[in-house]
Amino acid sequence: MESNNHSSRRKFIQQTAMAGAGLMLANTLPVFSQTNQSAAASNNIKSKGYAGKDEHGKLTAWNFERRPVGDNDILIEIKYSGICHSDIHTIKGHWGKQQYPQVPGHEIAGIVTAVGKNVKKFKVGDKAGVGCMVNSCMQCESCKKGQEHHCETTGNVGTYGAPEASSPTGITQGGYSSNMVVNEHFAIKIPKDIELQYAAPLLCAGITTYSPMMQYDVKKGDKVGVVGIGGLGHMAIKIAVSKGAEVYAFTTSPSKVNDIEGFGAKEVIVVDAADKLIPWKGKLDYMVSTVLYAYEMSPYIDCVKPYGYYTQVGMPVNGALAINNFNMIFNRVNFNGSLIGGIPETQVVMDYCAKNKIYPQIQVIKATEINDAWEKVVNKEARYRYVIDAATFS
Amino acid sequence: MESNNHSSRRKFIQQTAMAGAGLMLANTLPVFSQTNQSAAASNNIKSKGYAGKDEHGKLTAWNFERRPVGDNDILIEIKYSGICHSDIHTIKGHWGKQQYPQVPGHEIAGIVTAVGKNVKKFKVGDKAGVGCMVNSCMQCESCKKGQEHHCETTGNVGTYGAPEASSPTGITQGGYSSNMVVNEHFAIKIPKDIELQYAAPLLCAGITTYSPMMQYDVKKGDKVGVVGIGGLGHMAIKIAVSKGAEVYAFTTSPSKVNDIEGFGAKEVIVVDAADKLIPWKGKLDYMVSTVLYAYEMSPYIDCVKPYGYYTQVGMPVNGALAINNFNMIFNRVNFNGSLIGGIPETQVVMDYCAKNKIYPQIQVIKATEINDAWEKVVNKEARYRYVIDAATFS
Repeated sequence: MESNNHSSRRKFIQQTAMAGAGLMLANTLPVFSQTNQSAAASNNIKSKGYAGKDEHGKLTAWNFERRPVGDNDILIEIKYSGICHSDIHTIKGHWGKQQYPQVPGHEIAGIVTAVGKNVKKFKVGDKAGVGCMVNSCMQCESCKKGQEHHCETTGNVGTYGAPEASSPTGITQGGYSSNMVVNEHFAIKIPKDIELQYAAPLLCAGITTYSPMMQYDVKKGDKVGVVGIGGLGHMAIKIAVSKGAEVYAFTTSPSKVNDIEGFGAKEVIVVDAADKLIPWKGKLDYMVSTVLYAYEMSPYIDCVKPYGYYTQVGMPVNGALAINNFNMIFNRVNFNGSLIGGIPETQVVMDYCAKNKIYPQIQVIKATEINDAWEKVVNKEARYRYVIDAATFS
Repeated sequence: MESNNHSSRRKFIQQTAMAGAGLMLANTLPVFSQTNQSAAASNNIKSKGYAGKDEHGKLTAWNFERRPVGDNDILIEIKYSGICHSDIHTIKGHWGKQQYPQVPGHEIAGIVTAVGKNVKKFKVGDKAGVGCMVNSCMQCESCKKGQEHHCETTGNVGTYGAPEASSPTGITQGGYSSNMVVNEHFAIKIPKDIELQYAAPLLCAGITTYSPMMQYDVKKGDKVGVVGIGGLGHMAIKIAVSKGAEVYAFTTSPSKVNDIEGFGAKEVIVVDAADKLIPWKGKLDYMVSTVLYAYEMSPYIDCVKPYGYYTQVGMPVNGALAINNFNMIFNRVNFNGSLIGGIPETQVVMDYCAKNKIYPQIQVIKATEINDAWEKVVNKEARYRYVIDAATFS
């Protein structure tokens, strides 16, 4: 605050940034609790998957074990698993140090093959999905309100890479694998009338864009901007269009224009020069950005009408974003960030998309194609979500 | 947007930053229209003031001329002029290149000594004030709504340093001077029952904090945080307290604690280490920051409750601020910026403070003490607003 002592201020910023990111780091730092590899070991579930072994981020086949099916757990035979850019950022350590081997994947869809004795929501043979979290305290106000992703005590336990005492590997292991054991509360019922390969991406790309748009209350006639048209962005367009909004898509990829029009966008703006944003100044009611790299947000925020809202869901390396207050004092826009969504809302978006036939545009790949797919995601060549056929892990 | 081409992205950011700041730059770049030094020169008003001559920011005495009193203008004999940190940033070129000599000052209070033939709001002998702007188009939607500071066509014309055809010097000249000619619409009526030296700081420090707090609707029982307790911050505290809010003040200056308690703050938090903010996580309904230097905002924003609001009114060098999206996705706070306020709202805050005896804490100085006062403002030694006695310009 107005300090001229730059060295101490830098230190202070570093410290506060660490403190502020504590909740997130709690899920990613390799600080392990005890693992239960002893007594229950004989009942552990064998799983085959693809894991990152270090920060270089090349995945290789890996056989590992999951915990036995507890009284409140279900066992899911995974059929399809989506690839999210977050998987890449996490395994490469862009958001914090990681424990390896680590199996990524948080867009998981399959069939229930076993249930614990207390399980009520599922029976063997049901379709089930798992998204970005697999546990939370379930006692705090946020958890009780169905906002488990904002758990105030333990923080939510991420689907992969989070310290977990019950896991034989010490951390949660994600969905690039043949099966999964999960507490039934954190599993989503997948309706019969949506195919599993289309259901999978709804569990991250769907809920992550649906939640902030519903928080804003996107409705018929609203002018909605979507920035960054990849896995999340293309779902944001489809969902907003289904709500009756006029959708304006901002992309840096001219090759995506036809596809984006096909998703229902009213107009596609190819932002290949700064002046492409100028005509949009103050024109939109709401915008959501899925951009995953550091970028100067303010010229995009300028496109929102005064007193409107702009949500950033994409997470750059270390979370760092630049904002220019010269823009902010004139545009009078409210900026916010959004994580994912709670379990009840994830069920809502799953049911909503199934009922309204809002499907992601996917490319199904084999396990051996994962590394190639990751490169394409980074190079913006995905069209628009890679989904792994889990039968190929065997 | 997800580009790996860093050099082109940098260029793009620079270009968009320029474009985005266009409205502001329009007021500060030395691109002059014609000046009317010819016909009307004989009726020009002679003025004595203190001006910056270059970016070093040392002010010296300067005799200059103002335009003749037009049909819609009033002439104000300035009695007091407040010193705002913005004066220093502007003259030193921190917010853009400047034309010199330039007389700063946008907290101006005096007595009307002449009126144009169309003037209705004032008569000779009235108290009058001028704040941060002296003109706008008066035709656009924002101007018609009394939000002249957000004029959509010409932008508002700042009180100093803005190109102005009618000014003999080519730019507007501010309040560190003996008199001023201004269109009556942009002058504020100062009630009889507030002394001019206390009225002056309300025209920037008052309105700039009042406007966003009223936009948020600060009211009885709200927990309001104020970050940075200088000229603006101490007014924010007094105004919020007067509205019945519980005010929490965040400062880096332990020597200000007693004063701040005297302003009515319920608690003062001396932020001398990062962990001082942690207990305040999610505790406040609303926060306003007056911090004028680049700082990591996110740990402060974390102190606001989910779905609350945080307003930045202080403007760092080049407007650059850093925001961490790891924090933003968890705190779910809405961030916004705020400039000043419109003319009608400036009249409201003037009347409100006069009626409720909400006075800034000031130190009256002579013109020869301005440079010393500027140093103290930069070193956070102001307690809390320097006000120049304009009689000492003669």
